[in-house]
Amino acid sequence: MFKTIVSADTLGAALDSVSVLVDECKIRLEEDGLTIRAVDPANVGMVDLELAAAAFESYETDGGVIGVNLDRLEDIVGMADSGQLVHLELDEETRKLHISLDGLEYTLALIDPDSIRQEPDLPELDLSAEIVIEGRDIARAVTAADMVSDHIALGVDPDDEEFYVDAEGDTDDVHLELGREDLISEQGHPLRRRGKDRTRRGVPRQDALQLRGR
Amino acid sequence: MFKTIVSADTLGAALDSVSVLVDECKIRLEEDGLTIRAVDPANVGMVDLELAAAAFESYETDGGVIGVNLDRLEDIVGMADSGQLVHLELDEETRKLHISLDGLEYTLALIDPDSIRQEPDLPELDLSAEIVIEGRDIARAVTAADMVSDHIALGVDPDDEEFYVDAEGDTDDVHLELGREDLISEQGHPLRRRGKDRTRRGVPRQDALQLRGR
Amino acid sequence: MFKTIVSADTLGAALDSVSVLVDECKIRLEEDGLTIRAVDPANVGMVDLELAAAAFESYETDGGVIGVNLDRLEDIVGMADSGQLVHLELDEETRKLHISLDGLEYTLALIDPDSIRQEPDLPELDLSAEIVIEGRDIARAVTAADMVSDHIALGVDPDDEEFYVDAEGDTDDVHLELGREDLISEQGHPLRRRGKDRTRRGVPRQDALQLRGR
Repeated sequence: MFKTIVSADTLGAALDSVSVLVDECKIRLEEDGLTIRAVDPANVGMVDLELAAAAFESYETDGGVIGVNLDRLEDIVGMADSGQLVHLELDEETRKLHISLDGLEYTLALIDPDSIRQEPDLPELDLSAEIVIEGRDIARAVTAADMVSDHIALGVDPDDEEFYVDAEGDTDDVHLELGREDLISEQGHPLRRRGKDRTRRGVPRQDALQLRGR
Repeated sequence: MFKTIVSADTLGAALDSVSVLVDECKIRLEEDGLTIRAVDPANVGMVDLELAAAAFESYETDGGVIGVNLDRLEDIVGMADSGQLVHLELDEETRKLHISLDGLEYTLALIDPDSIRQEPDLPELDLSAEIVIEGRDIARAVTAADMVSDHIALGVDPDDEEFYVDAEGDTDDVHLELGREDLISEQGHPLRRRGKDRTRRGVPRQDALQLRGR
Repeated sequence: MFKTIVSADTLGAALDSVSVLVDECKIRLEEDGLTIRAVDPANVGMVDLELAAAAFESYETDGGVIGVNLDRLEDIVGMADSGQLVHLELDEETRKLHISLDGLEYTLALIDPDSIRQEPDLPELDLSAEIVIEGRDIARAVTAADMVSDHIALGVDPDDEEFYVDAEGDTDDVHLELGREDLISEQGHPLRRRGKDRTRRGVPRQDALQLRGR
């Protein structure tokens, strides 16, 4: 049994973060919310999402796993106007998901969860830096980096207390530095370093995360 | 003789409804207004348009038929700003239409009406239901239906006094129901039924119109 | 040495006018500003641009010539928000241009000026008419003309004191006339004629400029 009402904005944003990586995924229906864990086919990106029951207007389930076509589900949810509510109800017998929004009813055939790529094990990561940054800052850096390279290095310089982005192309380079005052300070999320001295792609003595872009 | 002044918005909206079906059409110049009747090449859709003389700022003609390239005419009229007036004048001798808007003069070569696809006879339709609906409601239903199928069934359920839209795909279905309170009530346009009991595509005991989408 | 701060809007607009013609160009760094002169590969259009030092927030140079990839430079400058400042600094040794805007640093490799198409000699033009016109008027005329032809004639009729645009297609024609009251009157820029009686493309007894469009 799975029956819920949720704002289309909330559901859409959650699905967005998964659909950038995979086309279909398993959704675990748990008593305290939905969880989705998926890894892209190239094993580069992973999403580990939890949408707590509290994020729903109403939420009832007795557990289970469903497999969904994310593109299709996103398209349907995307038809709702901002602020509208989406009703989801699982028909156990036919294995279809009934989705209704403002009078429109959509019956979505589910995918056998066993046919979907296995969920990744969550790797144990010893993450030595943590920053909170404006989305537009990182978007701007990635757009600029994309002009010169398909690799990008993100890092934290503990001495200068700076977060930086680096991209090196064949002829051109992009560099962005954000000091403590440009970052969003959050309780418990100070800019910090935990003592690693690795060197990656010529970015020495800093904690850097390597991302591979398109 | 044909000489008229008309708001670009009015003329543009009228042409729009024709150009979704055909690229060129005959325009009948009658004393009480323009009429256009056209059917698409696949004989599926028909438009029967009358733009009354009262819709024009000024309207003079002594009759006749002209053939026009709708794309071209729409492009020209589309160059007008909202609220601007378009002057049309037929040059009988050269068979060209002089179009002027805000200083810009366009000379449009007309098409020999005999070379244009014959106008359809108006079929005698015994339409047993009539509803008036918000454009956005039908647009939303068609968008959703388009996700699952290239057919759509529109119908009226006389018992529940509902208008419905149905689309059945291979795996997914779309259904929309609009009760009397969701429809626009207009004088003389009550939601009504005239006693047909046809069954079409599994939509029994209701009056349904079959549309074929792209 | 070349070091300057300039509004992204100013720099972007200047580059725009050059990049419609060429992909790369030489920028002459002169004491009183930047100058760019370029001709498109088909030798049809020429741009002769001067961006005076006064247009910059700060401007320092001891002269020189740099060759730039305009697309790349435009993309970078286009990343600035409206009103933001762009810092440009030439690294003489590496022949790279350091561009920074709001924390983002971009290192642009310059092109050897000798490898760039030679700058055109400024032809001696005896221009017999001069008008100042609203950009939207000329844009509208060109859009309409583009529907019927890939040539356009611009001219001034001294007797009627009119500026006109003419385009003749195989079947359709476009004509626009703007009287003195539709033109922007500027000091020292009266609508005038200097006594030429050339005939071009059927536009007799007027001073006309021929442009070749796409």
